[in-house]
Amino acid sequence: MNRIITESNQTQDHSFVLKGHIVYTPSPEEMTCLPDHYLVCKEGYVEGVYQDLPQAAAHLPLYNCGDQIILPGMSDLHVHAGQYAYRGLGMDLELLDWLNEYAFPEEARFSDEDYAQKLYSLFAERVRHSTTTRLAAWGTIHAPATEILMAELAAAGLKGFVGKLNMDRNSSPAVTERTASSLADTEAWIERTKHRYPGIEPIITPRFIPSCTPELLQGLGELAARSGVRVQSHVSENLQEIAWVADLEPEAQSYSGAYDRYGLFGSTVPVIMAHMVHPSPHEWELMLQRDVTIAHCPASNMNVMSGLAPVKAFLDAGVQVGLGTDVAGGFCISMCRAITDAIQVSKLRAHLVATGQMAGALSSVGGSAGVGQNREAEVADTASAPRGQLTLTEGVWLSTKGGGRFFGKVGSFEAGYEFDAVVVDDSALCKALTFNLTQRVERLIYLYPEVKVSAKYVAGKKVL
Amino acid sequence: MNRIITESNQTQDHSFVLKGHIVYTPSPEEMTCLPDHYLVCKEGYVEGVYQDLPQAAAHLPLYNCGDQIILPGMSDLHVHAGQYAYRGLGMDLELLDWLNEYAFPEEARFSDEDYAQKLYSLFAERVRHSTTTRLAAWGTIHAPATEILMAELAAAGLKGFVGKLNMDRNSSPAVTERTASSLADTEAWIERTKHRYPGIEPIITPRFIPSCTPELLQGLGELAARSGVRVQSHVSENLQEIAWVADLEPEAQSYSGAYDRYGLFGSTVPVIMAHMVHPSPHEWELMLQRDVTIAHCPASNMNVMSGLAPVKAFLDAGVQVGLGTDVAGGFCISMCRAITDAIQVSKLRAHLVATGQMAGALSSVGGSAGVGQNREAEVADTASAPRGQLTLTEGVWLSTKGGGRFFGKVGSFEAGYEFDAVVVDDSALCKALTFNLTQRVERLIYLYPEVKVSAKYVAGKKVL
Repeated sequence: MNRIITESNQTQDHSFVLKGHIVYTPSPEEMTCLPDHYLVCKEGYVEGVYQDLPQAAAHLPLYNCGDQIILPGMSDLHVHAGQYAYRGLGMDLELLDWLNEYAFPEEARFSDEDYAQKLYSLFAERVRHSTTTRLAAWGTIHAPATEILMAELAAAGLKGFVGKLNMDRNSSPAVTERTASSLADTEAWIERTKHRYPGIEPIITPRFIPSCTPELLQGLGELAARSGVRVQSHVSENLQEIAWVADLEPEAQSYSGAYDRYGLFGSTVPVIMAHMVHPSPHEWELMLQRDVTIAHCPASNMNVMSGLAPVKAFLDAGVQVGLGTDVAGGFCISMCRAITDAIQVSKLRAHLVATGQMAGALSSVGGSAGVGQNREAEVADTASAPRGQLTLTEGVWLSTKGGGRFFGKVGSFEAGYEFDAVVVDDSALCKALTFNLTQRVERLIYLYPEVKVSAKYVAGKKVL
Repeated sequence: MNRIITESNQTQDHSFVLKGHIVYTPSPEEMTCLPDHYLVCKEGYVEGVYQDLPQAAAHLPLYNCGDQIILPGMSDLHVHAGQYAYRGLGMDLELLDWLNEYAFPEEARFSDEDYAQKLYSLFAERVRHSTTTRLAAWGTIHAPATEILMAELAAAGLKGFVGKLNMDRNSSPAVTERTASSLADTEAWIERTKHRYPGIEPIITPRFIPSCTPELLQGLGELAARSGVRVQSHVSENLQEIAWVADLEPEAQSYSGAYDRYGLFGSTVPVIMAHMVHPSPHEWELMLQRDVTIAHCPASNMNVMSGLAPVKAFLDAGVQVGLGTDVAGGFCISMCRAITDAIQVSKLRAHLVATGQMAGALSSVGGSAGVGQNREAEVADTASAPRGQLTLTEGVWLSTKGGGRFFGKVGSFEAGYEFDAVVVDDSALCKALTFNLTQRVERLIYLYPEVKVSAKYVAGKKVL
């Protein structure tokens, strides 16, 4: 007989059982929905999902989640913690204007550690209450403030990577570093913070090519190779920006190629690249050859008018891809909204491609046929399902197992995965009809502001 | 000296003063932001906005809204109350499949008046707590259920129009009427409900051309002309649907032209047409000649893969246009979300037009140059602002004064407008920075799930 444990007497066991409606996506095509099942956590890892509790788990504490839905924790692959304070502002501007008018002035404030403490503790608390368990977060150029962010996220029980930004050109003076000190500060910060904050590790974060000199990029690439520390950055977001990068890096074959020249595109360490809205043929090739995960950020791509990224083509071609909220280019911290935004944007793209109003992947940059283009055109030509849009299952997969891959075996309830789970109470939704579990999942994702994350586990540790 | 009145002792005065931060959009280009001003309501109408309270209003009750923001009530020009129960479901389907799989079976349930009572009271209560004060709502084919919807909306203090649907072909049997009884039921329902429910009036509602025979459309057009009762319907939403209508109505010059042949496109009474995603040159002409208001529904246009409506071109060309949530093609009842969805979709369209990835308005239907196309191409070619996307001010205008026009002088705080006002408490938003009033408005619209409508007035009557 299991001990029945209520919220109030629950302890920090790392081996336990959750009972409830278990949902996960083992693949982009499959959503496994298991009503009233047992999800067994053994020392922080998923042991299995069972209709009847196995004898071997009978001695473990059992938390009965009742009629609630248990989903894998979600991974936010791209979020600017240093922009949290002003999300939902300046949305009438395009990317480069928005950076100058809002992002840079706000990020400059993080030279003040008290301000950083206040903001980052708000940010971490907010993420703690969301469906996000893992994140790749951006701080600012300031190492002390960024270390505060690491401490706050670790204290909230979240896991992931945090970047101190590097910027030594084309930025406002208050957020522009000298090349040598940018490199030295970054190396010292990595030394100081590596393995220091449980579950939160440093990540090398050149802002983007326009704000980093070749010398800085070269130094960061060497640092990554030397230290094994991973890398995150932005790539091919906006056509104006892409043209600028082509001017700045005339020898590179593409925007991604520019990073690659400096060892910053997955040739030595795993890399997250945010956006990739307009991949060129060369970039398609590089994405498939290197250890690069694309953070698709649909909200921000709409808000700063970047365009419609070919996310479905990425998925079909085997590009490693997940989702990012991109706060504050995105205004919403919820990964549920990132899922529905991704689906909506993919539908518009599929509609435009299917009706001949927009060419498939690649043609916007005038390239020759490549992996993504062929596939996207093929799918668009098929009258029957599946069309070129993301399904709900694919959206959930991207936010869990797709993005989770960057953090290890994360984002599924298959045996051996780290035990990241969110318990969702959807009782506030109108229940005039009887919905099956799959339908309840769709509704809780679409109607996310009306549901509540009532409990959350990260690698088996209860953090909410 | 004014009586200071708190929530608890507030009575149903129709002449009173609100003090707070007053915001409204007298035109699509202008947002008037007046911190700490007095908004005077006289017998249900706006008397004026004042920095200092005029002597003439000194005797009126004063409600101090403190640091809250007071906006005009918003008008939801297109919302299916009969689909409220399943919003957020079936979002992987396209329009026609979605209708057959979800809309028709659910609407059939409203033959049961108990079910209608339960659902419509939930719906009305939900709208009462939103920023919406006026709406053009759709019931189902069932006159008794639709009358219940009218009663519930009136009881909630909301104003607007409610439609009993007409459908006599191409629908599932449970929601298909006989032509003669559809006409007779509609006429009897209008007789019974006209002026019966304060502020809520009947509106003639042929679902769309494919579900109405020519005989039914003819009869409804004659009924509109005879009774003066307004009309609402769907038009030019989806390319597949448009092709179907061209087959069904070979003599019409366009989808809108088909309605116009039967007197259902604004030639006799004002009409709301939802969507108009793909206007043909003929439809551009008709929209400008007739008394037709377009309900732009960006969320639903994404969800059921209809496309990107040229809303900015509508605005620039002088088409009468407002916004609709289109629940349940849209999943969100909030007009704030409709604003940000409209802005996002307009940005994608502007981006695609500006970068030559998509042709401007009209070309998608192969038409010759017309009003909208010239204007959209012009705007897209201009490098400087304004570009082809909606601004926040335009979005707010569309949801207030733009859509409000259908209901009379509604949606502004200019003198003589009906006193529709919502008091918004944005105190839950992160306030680490100091935001001016314009910035607070932008944030409350974008971050709508995190703010609260704390009070609401419709034509001077407090309903929340």
